[in-house]
Amino acid sequence: MAQRHHDLTDRAAGPVTTGDALAGYLRGQATEFLRALRLHRETGGAVSNGSSSASTGGAASAEVRVDAVRALRRSARRISGSLHTFRPLLEPEWAEGIRPELAWLSGTLALEQAYGARLERLLLALNRLSGSAPVPSQPAGPAGPTADGRAAAHPATPDRGNLTVGAAKAGALLDRQLTLARTRAHSTALQALGSSRFHAVADKVAVLASEVLLTSAAPATDLRPLATAAEERLADAVTALPLVTAGSPYNAEALIHGLSPDPAPHPQDAPWHQVRLLLRLHRYACEVVHGRSAPLDVRLLAAGEALDRHRDASEASSAAAQAARTPRIAPATAYALGVLHADQRHEVEAARYAFQRAWQKQTIGAP
Amino acid sequence: MAQRHHDLTDRAAGPVTTGDALAGYLRGQATEFLRALRLHRETGGAVSNGSSSASTGGAASAEVRVDAVRALRRSARRISGSLHTFRPLLEPEWAEGIRPELAWLSGTLALEQAYGARLERLLLALNRLSGSAPVPSQPAGPAGPTADGRAAAHPATPDRGNLTVGAAKAGALLDRQLTLARTRAHSTALQALGSSRFHAVADKVAVLASEVLLTSAAPATDLRPLATAAEERLADAVTALPLVTAGSPYNAEALIHGLSPDPAPHPQDAPWHQVRLLLRLHRYACEVVHGRSAPLDVRLLAAGEALDRHRDASEASSAAAQAARTPRIAPATAYALGVLHADQRHEVEAARYAFQRAWQKQTIGAP
Repeated sequence: MAQRHHDLTDRAAGPVTTGDALAGYLRGQATEFLRALRLHRETGGAVSNGSSSASTGGAASAEVRVDAVRALRRSARRISGSLHTFRPLLEPEWAEGIRPELAWLSGTLALEQAYGARLERLLLALNRLSGSAPVPSQPAGPAGPTADGRAAAHPATPDRGNLTVGAAKAGALLDRQLTLARTRAHSTALQALGSSRFHAVADKVAVLASEVLLTSAAPATDLRPLATAAEERLADAVTALPLVTAGSPYNAEALIHGLSPDPAPHPQDAPWHQVRLLLRLHRYACEVVHGRSAPLDVRLLAAGEALDRHRDASEASSAAAQAARTPRIAPATAYALGVLHADQRHEVEAARYAFQRAWQKQTIGAP
Repeated sequence: MAQRHHDLTDRAAGPVTTGDALAGYLRGQATEFLRALRLHRETGGAVSNGSSSASTGGAASAEVRVDAVRALRRSARRISGSLHTFRPLLEPEWAEGIRPELAWLSGTLALEQAYGARLERLLLALNRLSGSAPVPSQPAGPAGPTADGRAAAHPATPDRGNLTVGAAKAGALLDRQLTLARTRAHSTALQALGSSRFHAVADKVAVLASEVLLTSAAPATDLRPLATAAEERLADAVTALPLVTAGSPYNAEALIHGLSPDPAPHPQDAPWHQVRLLLRLHRYACEVVHGRSAPLDVRLLAAGEALDRHRDASEASSAAAQAARTPRIAPATAYALGVLHADQRHEVEAARYAFQRAWQKQTIGAP
């Protein structure tokens, strides 16, 4: 509790924000959801065969479609998160019915982009490890190179001219495995967007755009206690993190189970992933209470970016370890994947350090 | 030059130290050399067959022999270093004749212990990476676990009960390769100590114990300008290091050529190794000028320890990479060696960070 920051309490002197603001926020997000859906349909998303950007409408329309999918996920996350944080103000049956559906949609739509970004991250790392890519060094701070999600086509493939045989083979293996996963995720996403399950969600969101089902007392209820509770859940989860260790550079914790016989050797990552979700819920609650036009808290953004990078590096390291379990690979390939795995675990540790720094600034800087 | 510290200039107000002090220092080191040599002979070092500590005289005498070898190296380094720093005060022919011989001796005697320490470092790392050894975390600071050199017998083998197949096989492979190298180094050292080349060195050191061949002007010459020159060579070499990068945690520089096709992929380590040698020369010059009873500069010691750790991790990472080139190893073994290699390169980076911190303290703390 001691480390809580003060986004909400700082502004307690302002006008009281009530359930009406929540209704307005949800209507706005629902409207954005429907707009993104229309955009996606117009670019023919639902009939793409998913093999590449050239399948329908060319690169420009593919880019629009990627943007549309991102906007869909963005508003789905915000609706779902706000329904969670402010659930005492909402008709329980209705709110509980739509939340898992939004989570399903958001998760399903996220995978294609995630596999693409993971592949790009790993190929860039292989290049950096081979000393062949002019990737700038990444001091503790904002996230390293990650996909910006615009690459509906094949992700930017870095130069492979200067790789060792092992690095080149490892890159080819990861490319094969993650491109396959990405293609499947693309098909799954398209199927989902064409399913009756999705149409039911879209119908519910369409209702939300015009009418939010608040409880009768909600319109006049102060939102801030519920927003503060979300902030406290975040602060408590952060307090439980090993922040002292994370703040000590080169603590060598992130790789400590890198060769464990355990098939899921990094349970240490889970509390950080959890904080990432709670930080997001806190951010959405701030948006509801202070309005979307309120200035962004850059320290909170830095903390969130560090946790995104933590998640990306954690998943990339698992993908490298997974690829190394492919039967009959050459020892040189396996060696390169081992180096790559350790490199990404190093990134995990660096991200924790960056989070710790951002969070410290936040609590120290608070009035 | 701006980063020079002030060990010598601080004390410029004290009595002038002249060539007489150098003669006294060299006589003292030569006496220690001869004492260590006698001790080594008494424990039967020269007739051991090198296969293990049990070969002659048991563990206790093996321990004495290891101590004797360390003392021999210690005084050989100091004699050689002082002859280098203060060479204008010494009869050139005599000094130039003995220096390469001392370097040969010191290098030859160092290898056995180095291979043992390297194996122990790598096996401890494999255990840590498997999450099976209760090795304390190592925040930036003093060196991690390294052999204390007392293990004339087989180095302490950590628990292997909980390793993956890959980690266990990698450990067994490294054990085989480094134990073989260590046994060979042991034989080579024993042969060297029985050679006529060594007897010639010992004779020269015996002369040094009673009579230092100074130039006629040397006994009354101030030593401090030469000591200051040694300090300046160190400061210049440090200035050329990428200290800004090293001071930025998680800069990911040390692993940047980890998968390079270059067979000697880490030329970036060389300037750090060079600074390690110059720091040592500076320390010996301080011993000559201020006497061995002068208080140790703990910051200088911390910087030196960081560079020792840098060298150890650098060589351990190469040993892991080398082992991975063994023909017909299993992919799981190669994978574990890749993780291990990257882990040790991470240690290299951590050591640079620790050096940068120690050095900064030194220059900031200087009056």
